[in-house]
Amino acid sequence: MEKKLQTVRANNLKQKPEPDKLGFGKYFTDHMFVMDYEVDKGWYNPRITPYQPITLDPASMIFHYGQSVFEGLKAYRTEDDEILLFRPDKNMERMNRSNDRLSIPAIDEEQVLDYLIELIDLERDWVPNSEGTSLYIRPFIIATERNLRVAPAHSYKFLIILSPVGSYYPEGIHPVGIYVEDEFTRAVRGGTGTAKTGGNYSASYNAQEKASGNGQSQVLWLDALEKKYIEEVGSMNVFFKINGEVITPALSGSILEGITRMSIIEMLKDWGHTVVERKISIDEVFAAYDKGELEEVFGTGTAAVISPVGELQWKEKTIIINNRETGDLAKKLYNNITGIQTGKLADPYGWTIKVKEKVTKQGN
Amino acid sequence: MEKKLQTVRANNLKQKPEPDKLGFGKYFTDHMFVMDYEVDKGWYNPRITPYQPITLDPASMIFHYGQSVFEGLKAYRTEDDEILLFRPDKNMERMNRSNDRLSIPAIDEEQVLDYLIELIDLERDWVPNSEGTSLYIRPFIIATERNLRVAPAHSYKFLIILSPVGSYYPEGIHPVGIYVEDEFTRAVRGGTGTAKTGGNYSASYNAQEKASGNGQSQVLWLDALEKKYIEEVGSMNVFFKINGEVITPALSGSILEGITRMSIIEMLKDWGHTVVERKISIDEVFAAYDKGELEEVFGTGTAAVISPVGELQWKEKTIIINNRETGDLAKKLYNNITGIQTGKLADPYGWTIKVKEKVTKQGN
Ligand SMILES: Cc1ncc(COP(=O)(O)O)c(C=O)c1O
Ligand SMILES: Cc1ncc(COP(=O)(O)O)c(C=O)c1O
Repeated sequence: MEKKLQTVRANNLKQKPEPDKLGFGKYFTDHMFVMDYEVDKGWYNPRITPYQPITLDPASMIFHYGQSVFEGLKAYRTEDDEILLFRPDKNMERMNRSNDRLSIPAIDEEQVLDYLIELIDLERDWVPNSEGTSLYIRPFIIATERNLRVAPAHSYKFLIILSPVGSYYPEGIHPVGIYVEDEFTRAVRGGTGTAKTGGNYSASYNAQEKASGNGQSQVLWLDALEKKYIEEVGSMNVFFKINGEVITPALSGSILEGITRMSIIEMLKDWGHTVVERKISIDEVFAAYDKGELEEVFGTGTAAVISPVGELQWKEKTIIINNRETGDLAKKLYNNITGIQTGKLADPYGWTIKVKEKVTKQGN
Repeated sequence: MEKKLQTVRANNLKQKPEPDKLGFGKYFTDHMFVMDYEVDKGWYNPRITPYQPITLDPASMIFHYGQSVFEGLKAYRTEDDEILLFRPDKNMERMNRSNDRLSIPAIDEEQVLDYLIELIDLERDWVPNSEGTSLYIRPFIIATERNLRVAPAHSYKFLIILSPVGSYYPEGIHPVGIYVEDEFTRAVRGGTGTAKTGGNYSASYNAQEKASGNGQSQVLWLDALEKKYIEEVGSMNVFFKINGEVITPALSGSILEGITRMSIIEMLKDWGHTVVERKISIDEVFAAYDKGELEEVFGTGTAAVISPVGELQWKEKTIIINNRETGDLAKKLYNNITGIQTGKLADPYGWTIKVKEKVTKQGN
């Protein structure tokens, strides 16, 4: 089976958008990566092609039974115009965990990471260089078999598309308001919460609309069983600093294992902080606030890296955290992790990978 | 906005498959229905076109966040070559409930039912006539906006595709074996279990594989919270006849409100049976078996109509129901409901709708 990467270059390159107009996931680069799967062939025909539409039969399973997984990571441009990836091997590992949950055939993690790096190399001019910008990388797999039976597909497509994205904090890092959802549920143990699969995200839109209606920008999920223990925020894991100790919900079997979360925990421990992964209830957080012990709350995820929480609304009660200002710990974590990601700071953990320039540029 | 149905006919009609080779969801008819949605236009441009692939940008939201809903119903051919639909208005209502849960804009139920009827009329030759066969109708909606933000899409496509399907029981109605799943979860209150959305189905594949590995053909789901109360089976609701009384799980907020379920309940009540919708635990079912009071178990759904259960496996224990034979009640329900669906029996409930012949045939 053909496993060697084939590349067909775009004839005309797109005009790159203005760095201050990027937003998130609106613009896409000139090329994409595609690979197919058939039961008797495995994953085959890996190729880089011009960015282009996909044509699918209306009976393709992705349109009916949601069999899909995705990942999200970023490429950063350093001051010396090197391109860095942040722990992409962890995304590949997580993708295979998601694949397993969704009965999608595993990918070869190292091989796919090589393809991904080749694509980034070809598109390196698309990695923006203004403060806070990056190239968002979206690998995803969809079930393509044309059949309405309710069962794992026999054919799939794996794609990687790239989108230059703007700074999450165009006016500097600043705290957000969060609504504690106590009716809708994102995921439950035994469900798909630990997987990055489409259905988890559209399932959250109702709650997101409710949060917005309450003037808050994101949803904090509670556990499905007792609506008591904290799970995670929209697309972020969540941390609480209470009386000097940093607490984050343990991996419960229903939350996503964030790569930023994992890195933050390692970094905090390295700095000598006490970090505890355990069950934490929303009552405990509000009680800590009442005692004046709730020092900081922040979310962690690829998009915002660190997102300080300034306000937490639970039923009729709203609490203001750290005077709606970014806490010192959140700020320090943000600076350190983005420093490592963008090569401004040394990387003592070996988290970054340099995308070596290998592809010969067209016309050069 | 254009709301009048436009029709473009296929130039070449496909050869119809052999009635005994139909299977489920493998063959599709010559035409399909399509309609688009944009925020500023609402649903627009309803059209019947030749059955053909859809072309979508790889950043279309359906590939990433699973925002989709679907329905499933059937058209039956009567002995006088009339075409009947079974309670299609209920499918339209349920689709709008699913839409609401998935933050998809509502459809005009009556209008869409008219479009659906026009499509069936045009494709009436595709409704097979052998015993047990029918034309399966699959309406579905997918988010088409090209954008990676995690939020309801601003554009959608609604399609209806049609597939002639074979008899669910080519050798006559017969009982199946069911595996009681006590680890994986299908849905939980506050989640998407009451909606017919793709993610619910791919989420179940792991459990289905486990059931098959145990030699059983389908999964019986327990409630997510206590893994104690019975929810439903794969794509069916479930009924138990215990000591003369018919019991089915109440609509808990996490199971699909089946149209067959609703019809069976009405029919049973009409026949003077006691039907109770309530919480029923798996312990209760096994205890009833031990007391010799578990008379029948059967699933209900559009695909199989009535599916008697001959064997129930829960952890290490397996019970054989009614000597692995189809129970009298299941048989009577099956005969009556399929009789009404196919026009063999009178329809005292007003459940069926006749697809009037209106479209002028090409070449006539
Ligand atoms: C549901 C959910 N939780 C948490 C995260 C954070 O994970 P990561 O740090 O790997 O981006 C994400 C985003 O990827 C997410 O989608
Ligand atoms: C999860 C689930 N439960 C139950 C049913 C039965 O519903 P209906 O009788 O409307 O076909 C279906 C099939 O549509 C289903 O997908």
